[in-house]
Amino acid sequence: MKLILSLVNSGGSRLGKLTEVGRHAEISMETPCCLLYTRCGLPPHLTHDVKNTLKRLPPVTQLTLPTLAESQDAVDGSPGGIGNFIGDTDTLHYLSLHDPGVQIASGYNDKSSVSIWVSAGRMKLQVEKYMSIQKSFKPDWYNALYDGDTPPGCSRKRVQKSINRTLTFLDKCLQIHEESDDLKNSKLFGVLVGGDLHEDRLYCTREIAKRPVAGFVLDGFQRSMMQEEARWKLMSQIVKELPEEKPRLVNGIGRPDDIINAVEAGIDIFDSSFPYEVTERGCAFAFVFKKREGLDLESKDDKDDSDDCKQSTFESFMGSVPFDSKSTEACEKTEFEINLREQRYFDDFKPLIELCECYACQNHTRAYINHLLRTKELLGPLLLMLHNFHHYFEFFHELRESIRNGSLDTLKSLIKENQS
Amino acid sequence: MKLILSLVNSGGSRLGKLTEVGRHAEISMETPCCLLYTRCGLPPHLTHDVKNTLKRLPPVTQLTLPTLAESQDAVDGSPGGIGNFIGDTDTLHYLSLHDPGVQIASGYNDKSSVSIWVSAGRMKLQVEKYMSIQKSFKPDWYNALYDGDTPPGCSRKRVQKSINRTLTFLDKCLQIHEESDDLKNSKLFGVLVGGDLHEDRLYCTREIAKRPVAGFVLDGFQRSMMQEEARWKLMSQIVKELPEEKPRLVNGIGRPDDIINAVEAGIDIFDSSFPYEVTERGCAFAFVFKKREGLDLESKDDKDDSDDCKQSTFESFMGSVPFDSKSTEACEKTEFEINLREQRYFDDFKPLIELCECYACQNHTRAYINHLLRTKELLGPLLLMLHNFHHYFEFFHELRESIRNGSLDTLKSLIKENQS
Repeated sequence: MKLILSLVNSGGSRLGKLTEVGRHAEISMETPCCLLYTRCGLPPHLTHDVKNTLKRLPPVTQLTLPTLAESQDAVDGSPGGIGNFIGDTDTLHYLSLHDPGVQIASGYNDKSSVSIWVSAGRMKLQVEKYMSIQKSFKPDWYNALYDGDTPPGCSRKRVQKSINRTLTFLDKCLQIHEESDDLKNSKLFGVLVGGDLHEDRLYCTREIAKRPVAGFVLDGFQRSMMQEEARWKLMSQIVKELPEEKPRLVNGIGRPDDIINAVEAGIDIFDSSFPYEVTERGCAFAFVFKKREGLDLESKDDKDDSDDCKQSTFESFMGSVPFDSKSTEACEKTEFEINLREQRYFDDFKPLIELCECYACQNHTRAYINHLLRTKELLGPLLLMLHNFHHYFEFFHELRESIRNGSLDTLKSLIKENQS
Repeated sequence: MKLILSLVNSGGSRLGKLTEVGRHAEISMETPCCLLYTRCGLPPHLTHDVKNTLKRLPPVTQLTLPTLAESQDAVDGSPGGIGNFIGDTDTLHYLSLHDPGVQIASGYNDKSSVSIWVSAGRMKLQVEKYMSIQKSFKPDWYNALYDGDTPPGCSRKRVQKSINRTLTFLDKCLQIHEESDDLKNSKLFGVLVGGDLHEDRLYCTREIAKRPVAGFVLDGFQRSMMQEEARWKLMSQIVKELPEEKPRLVNGIGRPDDIINAVEAGIDIFDSSFPYEVTERGCAFAFVFKKREGLDLESKDDKDDSDDCKQSTFESFMGSVPFDSKSTEACEKTEFEINLREQRYFDDFKPLIELCECYACQNHTRAYINHLLRTKELLGPLLLMLHNFHHYFEFFHELRESIRNGSLDTLKSLIKENQS
């Protein structure tokens, strides 16, 4: 794996090209970028054919172990590893221990194992088991087993335990990796843990940076895991300890504002579970990242609606019936989305975003998507998923362009405008 | 609307072409055929683009009122009626009162109204309300309001009530229909009811046949509504009372063996909710309707598995965990399907059917679909839906071919072989 940097800004952001990743030498990936989020090997709701209609589709697919681990025995019997099993041999596969779209339960790791949750329940993974899955799956790229269970406010002892386990796991993984023929085309990333403790973070980072890993995964910087003030400073400090030529991936950071902050801290790679989360709550991205005529910010009226949403009812001729049991939950939306379950979209015949080129916006209206969500028809999330991926991938394209043009600050203020 | 018959067999089956249906004079439909089943205007799980990749796609889409009625006010504000609302202006739309894929609750109709169930609950439809929906939706084709609530074993009094209400509703619908400008391009079908009572059925049929309807819908012939022995005889007798040149549609008959029986009784049009039902229980069509090398019947071993299914457990390394809470329900499958949830498909790398040309069979294995269903990923039903529609539409094509070639009996025995 090679990361060729074409630009490193004094601000911290960098532009690069990731090459020689795995089976497909011809595939390269411009950074900063996101991976394609999947469940069971396919992006939620989309077949390969539909996925391939998306513009600026990431060339690397993130496979999530909790959605695939149960089929290890089947994958083992399948000649081409996980790519053959999921019917996708055209993209590169990064297999991650956890699903970035799912909050990880705390208190289930121990000295010799890390737990993940598969459909049948908890699965304990020792290093040997974990590496046997890697040998069966033969991903182009994966991360070492790690213990990232350091919720905010946990003790220093717990943080140090997490670091020590992570280092032990990593060394064992590296040893098995190097001795395995099955994994000779796979790249192994080390995972940086250490909660929000500066000194311990640095220790962990320096230790892992010494090892022959292909790149780094920064864990524990999710909003739920760290105080807002600490995150970007700590991230910058850690990244400074890392060799320039190795790629840096961060777990569970997906909001556009967070992404720009992380890019300024020197991060190269993100997951794309955020558009999936947005989709699952019945929302569509409506944030602006490009100044162009006709594509305006959502009007104030469209955005300031959290109260309306909570009280929203579906006023049918049968009387007042609660709109949808999920409407409260759906209010957890961020400033970057609109909630299509809201009554205001009942007869709104505009597309999700004016001038958007995605399939949903080209073919359907807000009113129809509101109807699909209200009747719980699965095509609602499908159309939202197409729109949200499209918008997100376009945002990443714009992000790279603005680093290239030295206009990252402009993008940053544009993103901020969505929040006011 | 015109049905041009090209062949009427002494056996009762007939071959025809339905033309001049509605807005699209250029669209015609060869009969016998099925309509495209939809929920909220789209076939379950499929966008228009994906739907259009299906071979032998029916040119008429069946819209189901319970999945659309709540948005009448929105459709009203939309310039092009229901086609514009659902984003489909290219196919013909038949709007049916009930959803053929859903069992109708008994005991909710009265003298002046029929109830349907929308997402917010029960909706009572008087003739005026029902016809105001038709005026808003402007379908190419719809049926009159009717009371078909005559469960097996109900009293003769109830059957006669149902007939009298249905006739009253029809006359009112016809009157409003004829006076309406909005409906001048729509065709109205009368619905034949009467339970399993021979004399009453004939009375109802003769009465409706006198009216200026464009065609006929036979209701009450679903398996759950009538004894098996009575069905085909009664159906033939009724059909004999109908004018030859008007099309006959039957509600809720979907099994291949039932379809052939109904075709021999003179039926032209079916719905396609059966492939959806099959999909929803995690099954794939595997019945054979064409003798060709390489495409054999499922082996006995593959088919005789109802016990295995009931006891099937997912033997994971975590111990014995019930395979899936739905596995018992999934056993209600017919002889025409295989149940992809079964453990036997865990590492079966064959397509759903050998040589099948559908997207799912061309791109994925039984093992992967088993995995998708086990992890409850929605792509499982999506792939099954594509396969099941493909197989069903091919079956209808073969059915027409065999009427043309005088080989319907061969097809009938081939279908029977699937059941042994």
